[in-house]
Amino acid sequence: MQARLAELSRLLDGELVGDPDLTVTRIGPLETADAHTISFLAQPRYLAQMLASAAGCVIVGPAMKDVATTRGAAIVCPDPYLAFARLTQWWAAQSRRAPPPGVHASAVVEEGAFIHPTASIGALSYVALGAAVQAGAVLGPQCHVGEGAVVGVGTVLKPRVVLGAACRIGQRGIVHSGAVIGADGFGFAPTEGRWEKIEQLGGVVIGDDVEIGANTCIDRGALEDTVLEDGVKLDNLVQIGHNVRVGAHSAFAGCVGVAGSAHIGRRCTAGGGAIILGHLQIVDDVHITAATVVSRSIHKPGQYSGAFPFDDNASWEKNAATLRQLHTLRERLRALERKSHET
Amino acid sequence: MQARLAELSRLLDGELVGDPDLTVTRIGPLETADAHTISFLAQPRYLAQMLASAAGCVIVGPAMKDVATTRGAAIVCPDPYLAFARLTQWWAAQSRRAPPPGVHASAVVEEGAFIHPTASIGALSYVALGAAVQAGAVLGPQCHVGEGAVVGVGTVLKPRVVLGAACRIGQRGIVHSGAVIGADGFGFAPTEGRWEKIEQLGGVVIGDDVEIGANTCIDRGALEDTVLEDGVKLDNLVQIGHNVRVGAHSAFAGCVGVAGSAHIGRRCTAGGGAIILGHLQIVDDVHITAATVVSRSIHKPGQYSGAFPFDDNASWEKNAATLRQLHTLRERLRALERKSHET
Amino acid sequence: MQARLAELSRLLDGELVGDPDLTVTRIGPLETADAHTISFLAQPRYLAQMLASAAGCVIVGPAMKDVATTRGAAIVCPDPYLAFARLTQWWAAQSRRAPPPGVHASAVVEEGAFIHPTASIGALSYVALGAAVQAGAVLGPQCHVGEGAVVGVGTVLKPRVVLGAACRIGQRGIVHSGAVIGADGFGFAPTEGRWEKIEQLGGVVIGDDVEIGANTCIDRGALEDTVLEDGVKLDNLVQIGHNVRVGAHSAFAGCVGVAGSAHIGRRCTAGGGAIILGHLQIVDDVHITAATVVSRSIHKPGQYSGAFPFDDNASWEKNAATLRQLHTLRERLRALERKSHET
Repeated sequence: MQARLAELSRLLDGELVGDPDLTVTRIGPLETADAHTISFLAQPRYLAQMLASAAGCVIVGPAMKDVATTRGAAIVCPDPYLAFARLTQWWAAQSRRAPPPGVHASAVVEEGAFIHPTASIGALSYVALGAAVQAGAVLGPQCHVGEGAVVGVGTVLKPRVVLGAACRIGQRGIVHSGAVIGADGFGFAPTEGRWEKIEQLGGVVIGDDVEIGANTCIDRGALEDTVLEDGVKLDNLVQIGHNVRVGAHSAFAGCVGVAGSAHIGRRCTAGGGAIILGHLQIVDDVHITAATVVSRSIHKPGQYSGAFPFDDNASWEKNAATLRQLHTLRERLRALERKSHET
Repeated sequence: MQARLAELSRLLDGELVGDPDLTVTRIGPLETADAHTISFLAQPRYLAQMLASAAGCVIVGPAMKDVATTRGAAIVCPDPYLAFARLTQWWAAQSRRAPPPGVHASAVVEEGAFIHPTASIGALSYVALGAAVQAGAVLGPQCHVGEGAVVGVGTVLKPRVVLGAACRIGQRGIVHSGAVIGADGFGFAPTEGRWEKIEQLGGVVIGDDVEIGANTCIDRGALEDTVLEDGVKLDNLVQIGHNVRVGAHSAFAGCVGVAGSAHIGRRCTAGGGAIILGHLQIVDDVHITAATVVSRSIHKPGQYSGAFPFDDNASWEKNAATLRQLHTLRERLRALERKSHET
Repeated sequence: MQARLAELSRLLDGELVGDPDLTVTRIGPLETADAHTISFLAQPRYLAQMLASAAGCVIVGPAMKDVATTRGAAIVCPDPYLAFARLTQWWAAQSRRAPPPGVHASAVVEEGAFIHPTASIGALSYVALGAAVQAGAVLGPQCHVGEGAVVGVGTVLKPRVVLGAACRIGQRGIVHSGAVIGADGFGFAPTEGRWEKIEQLGGVVIGDDVEIGANTCIDRGALEDTVLEDGVKLDNLVQIGHNVRVGAHSAFAGCVGVAGSAHIGRRCTAGGGAIILGHLQIVDDVHITAATVVSRSIHKPGQYSGAFPFDDNASWEKNAATLRQLHTLRERLRALERKSHET
């Protein structure tokens, strides 16, 4: 694949400074770029890397135009990171083959399933009774779409996704391999030392423009639906419990766990490995640092943290041992204060 | 679907107060219930919600009978949460189609596998040589049952479950999509800066009435078997290492990890994201709070915790920085105490 | 299966003390061994267990030769744990059937895929255009090998593995069920309160002798490749973000998460549930304790830790509450110190 800078600057709606006929053959990071690479500078702190880069062209913001063009061609865009994102989308669209519409001969589509003629059903996939796969949607090979489930217009299920019975995903979504949408929520009534199953009668409802990572699980609701609103992005190995609601444009990194019935606002983020306990409310615009355990509701936007600071093992051992007596330390401090106050 | 209250109160063995001919069309939470919804009150703290609910009928305990019936129909049961669980089971049984017995034409069943005539083998499933699928068992589409594995009477593997070679699950089990039972345990002998594989020669033995969540992994034992006793419930994305034993009726929430050779007692619970290190013993009736790291054996029943308390980021940063000097603080406190004692 | 001690001592290149014609029928741990079991003693602290064991033969190191032979037959090897590992390999090779070469009739192999004649493609597997499965490689049933992907000589994909488009794994690898190699990295540019996708144009490159656990995810790089060097071992449910590099012979236990662009050295280890944040550098020979959150680069080999010490719930509550005021405690201590200094 290759592209002329003239073409790319037009695509990105940017100002080209340099030779419009220069061609690039890849997008790459500044460090490993060569004369046929287009790269980008999103943050001023990588300026030195840009200056040292052999990239044929860099995408930069207006403030960097002058310095960038001292070293070679540049495309100037108001938001260079966004321009880079759009460039990757265009590049991928040019270089990847679209799956052919129609149902692969090895797929199993039950009677009564609706497959739009422009949709593509991959090899060895299974579509159950009453399911609907809408226009332009793609099921990769070995996918599973359960009874009455709906795959929205233009949504792509990568190979080996499970979309369970009566679960729905909207338009332009992407679900990565191994994701399981619509397994039973974890609900049991304790009785006489054992657990009685609460059948999970709700579904999962997913909005438009949602992306769901590999091997991520989103459980169906107990009575009503588990909901991901528009624009939600989930990384790999994320667990979303039953009845959870995730607000529009929230994004969770890998290994995040959200327990049942937590309601999370819009534009929230959670770093990798964070745990959000059940039945909590988190307002819009809350940002949870990686590995934080959110154990109560959060009513105010902002950044919240709670990881144990790591250390070399010997230091950690001493501090951890002391931590187990922290309350006692406070009592001792208080006693000293009282004594000091008396003297 | 719909049901008369007379029918439901008989089913639940409860006392109906109200019109036996009233029909309900769904089970729902108190908040969103309407006149055709049956709901339940399991905990007195939701009393106000019940009183404000438009539910056609509520399931309540004897103590709530009088107050509940001031607002409309009620079914009085000794344990309303358990009654609710049973109601969901009945509802699901009425409203879901049972998969047909027999082997789907697209499934691959190797010669020498035993499939009971009442069992159902879903589309695109694979059953290896020497495996046995017993009476009434169900393999959803795209399942995998390895060589010599056994699926017990009435057990359901949801779509795309892997039950590895020589692994056995008992009766009435449920395994959710993406679960992998019987992958190799993580065993290597270090030698000259690299790792020599220890082949995992044991299996996995799972009792009756066990439920296993989506994308959960249960490794086979190194020499003997990994064991889940009767009634164990595992949520999604749980990791059970090789040689682990989980006692009867223990239940682990999502993202729990149990390292190899840990032995866990009966009726234990672990909250989401808890980690239990290897080679530990945990007695019966131990409850591990979410996100706790259990780093040594627990010999006494009770609740154990160990999550870092989260905070707004600025507060956390200050406390975390101080925590890294905690041992020094203790030394300084001790010095002050000595000095104070001398004066 | 059974084996004579003469045969096993030859195989292990060990010194047999005892009857060469004694046969064993299983490998087992010391505790449950019987007269037909061969067991091993890798660590002196299990000496009492060995002395009490009914094992027909034990593998021991030279220092244990005299005491071991007081109780029965022994095979003396310089590194008994390594000898045990090799014994399990031999045992598995004897007792397991090799999958037949060739493509199962139910598998789907696209035109233009290369399958070496000695390779085995399991039932219901899918191999895309331009993929290559090299000599002696094995795809278990229901695997997926994407466009242009490469499975190296002798590598085994267990049932239901996904190796994404343009991803490569070297020789003698093992990938366990449910693993997803080559899903998109989690990359988005924020714009106007929503997320613009950064298409992930890199691949995943995996060296030789790598083992990857069940349901583990390894994301493709954004622009360049995510890399696992030779001999890396990953347990189950591990998350490896895009652009990560894991150095040769590093090993990560279950539920470890490594965020994007972290570069980890050789011979590192991480215990279960550890989280390594993105864009960090970790040098060779670093060992991360289970459940530690690595939040900055590590420049010195050694052991690093950071789990909150767990406790009974009441003690934890008191200490956690105090921890939230730790910075204040330090201020109070400082005030006392000043006052004490003045007097």
